[in-house]
Amino acid sequence: MASVSCISGRDELNFIHLCNPHLEKMQEDILYHFALGTGTHDLPALFGDVKFVCVGGSPSRMKAFITYIAGELGLGSPGSEHPNICAGTDRYAMYKVGPVLSVSHGMGIPSISIMLHELIKLLHHAKCSNVTIIRIGTSGGIGLEPGSVVITRKSVDATFKPQFEQVILGKSVIRSTDLDEQLAKELMQCSKEINEFNTVIGNTMCTLDFYEGQGRLDGAICLYTKEEKLQYLREAFESGVRNIEMESSVFAAMCNLSGVKGKVATLLKL
Amino acid sequence: MASVSCISGRDELNFIHLCNPHLEKMQEDILYHFALGTGTHDLPALFGDVKFVCVGGSPSRMKAFITYIAGELGLGSPGSEHPNICAGTDRYAMYKVGPVLSVSHGMGIPSISIMLHELIKLLHHAKCSNVTIIRIGTSGGIGLEPGSVVITRKSVDATFKPQFEQVILGKSVIRSTDLDEQLAKELMQCSKEINEFNTVIGNTMCTLDFYEGQGRLDGAICLYTKEEKLQYLREAFESGVRNIEMESSVFAAMCNLSGVKGKVATLLKL
Repeated sequence: MASVSCISGRDELNFIHLCNPHLEKMQEDILYHFALGTGTHDLPALFGDVKFVCVGGSPSRMKAFITYIAGELGLGSPGSEHPNICAGTDRYAMYKVGPVLSVSHGMGIPSISIMLHELIKLLHHAKCSNVTIIRIGTSGGIGLEPGSVVITRKSVDATFKPQFEQVILGKSVIRSTDLDEQLAKELMQCSKEINEFNTVIGNTMCTLDFYEGQGRLDGAICLYTKEEKLQYLREAFESGVRNIEMESSVFAAMCNLSGVKGKVATLLKL
Repeated sequence: MASVSCISGRDELNFIHLCNPHLEKMQEDILYHFALGTGTHDLPALFGDVKFVCVGGSPSRMKAFITYIAGELGLGSPGSEHPNICAGTDRYAMYKVGPVLSVSHGMGIPSISIMLHELIKLLHHAKCSNVTIIRIGTSGGIGLEPGSVVITRKSVDATFKPQFEQVILGKSVIRSTDLDEQLAKELMQCSKEINEFNTVIGNTMCTLDFYEGQGRLDGAICLYTKEEKLQYLREAFESGVRNIEMESSVFAAMCNLSGVKGKVATLLKL
């Protein structure tokens, strides 16, 4: 079915690659779920200086993050409000300070996937180069103390395979979920210097479901025993899984295809 | 793996059934993503009179809906604000007027699934009976005028099968996506009486992805041709599909398992 080819990889300036030849023929590109577009917004002027994008599930956390990072970078006056760039929609929230963009993505693979399609197009239209995207969030952990941080080595599916299955026009396509290894080492080094959190590099399991998919016993539906749950989590741990969340696989697959440095770091829930 | 059985179906008063024997042993049930719980809230007092739950993706639309329905039912003073019952979290928004609850669910199967697990438990704890849940939303259409309404006969997957595949503890489980037929007829009759919309009963395709999963040509990644896209949509139409969205399959599967009358009605996007 792949009768249109995708020339991925990076050039010297590491611009964002769109694996979609149809876009060249479009006069205008509307980023529906951001309420932004090439016909209505000067994207290079608004976003051309972006070098780091941090994405996470909750809009209020991403707002809190931009306030924190503004303080750390000494940009903007303390207490100043950072406007929501996507105020025209309630699908996602987006904040910017200097070279850092902070975007919410909701919960689950389909929700983050819509956001990433439009984010990657936004960064391309804005002519951004050398962009790093980091997913920050909370997750459940396996065999680690609450409050630990997991930097994802590989994102694996519910059978512990490092792959993302995408259904395209009714057919299953398997994509790689490798993440940037150098970036993992850099983040680990940062964590050592800060010395505030127990930080490990491990595999992250990405599921399509929060309750039954992650072996919880307290959903509205649960047809397995506690022993079956524990056996599954033991197998996950033995395969190298250290935490479980719901977005990392498609995040890794889409970063790979678009030539973006991508990384996932999650804080285990208390 | 199903070593714990689920006794589904309804008793005379049609209470909500929880297919989870573990819940009986829990002293407190925290509905994390609603910021509600049995230990902190008097759920029967707050929600015991609920008979209809309308769910949809966008929080602002679900707020607009409760204002509309309050006017239609003559409940509450015009212009009065309806507080967000889930103000303690930004995951979902919830509004109530009389017997009607209006809840947002975000985008995609994983996001609505978390909401439905907690909604079904909430209705159970509140001792609600004879509850009808209707998903209202927008979707893409096939072979219909924009602005039409599709009442879902069956929710089908990306290969046009009326089923929902759920991965539980790493194993695939197939669940039925049948929806209440009588309710479809009643909604169709209402539509005829209102006579404002072109309304059809048809199959709804539920995908895990908005761009590549639904054959769009304007995502950041698109490796198929326009002809391949059109061929796929033709096959979908011929199988009875009239619209495409991202939540109906798990909605139908979970309503079935919990003994709730469920229905999906979607307005085709303009």
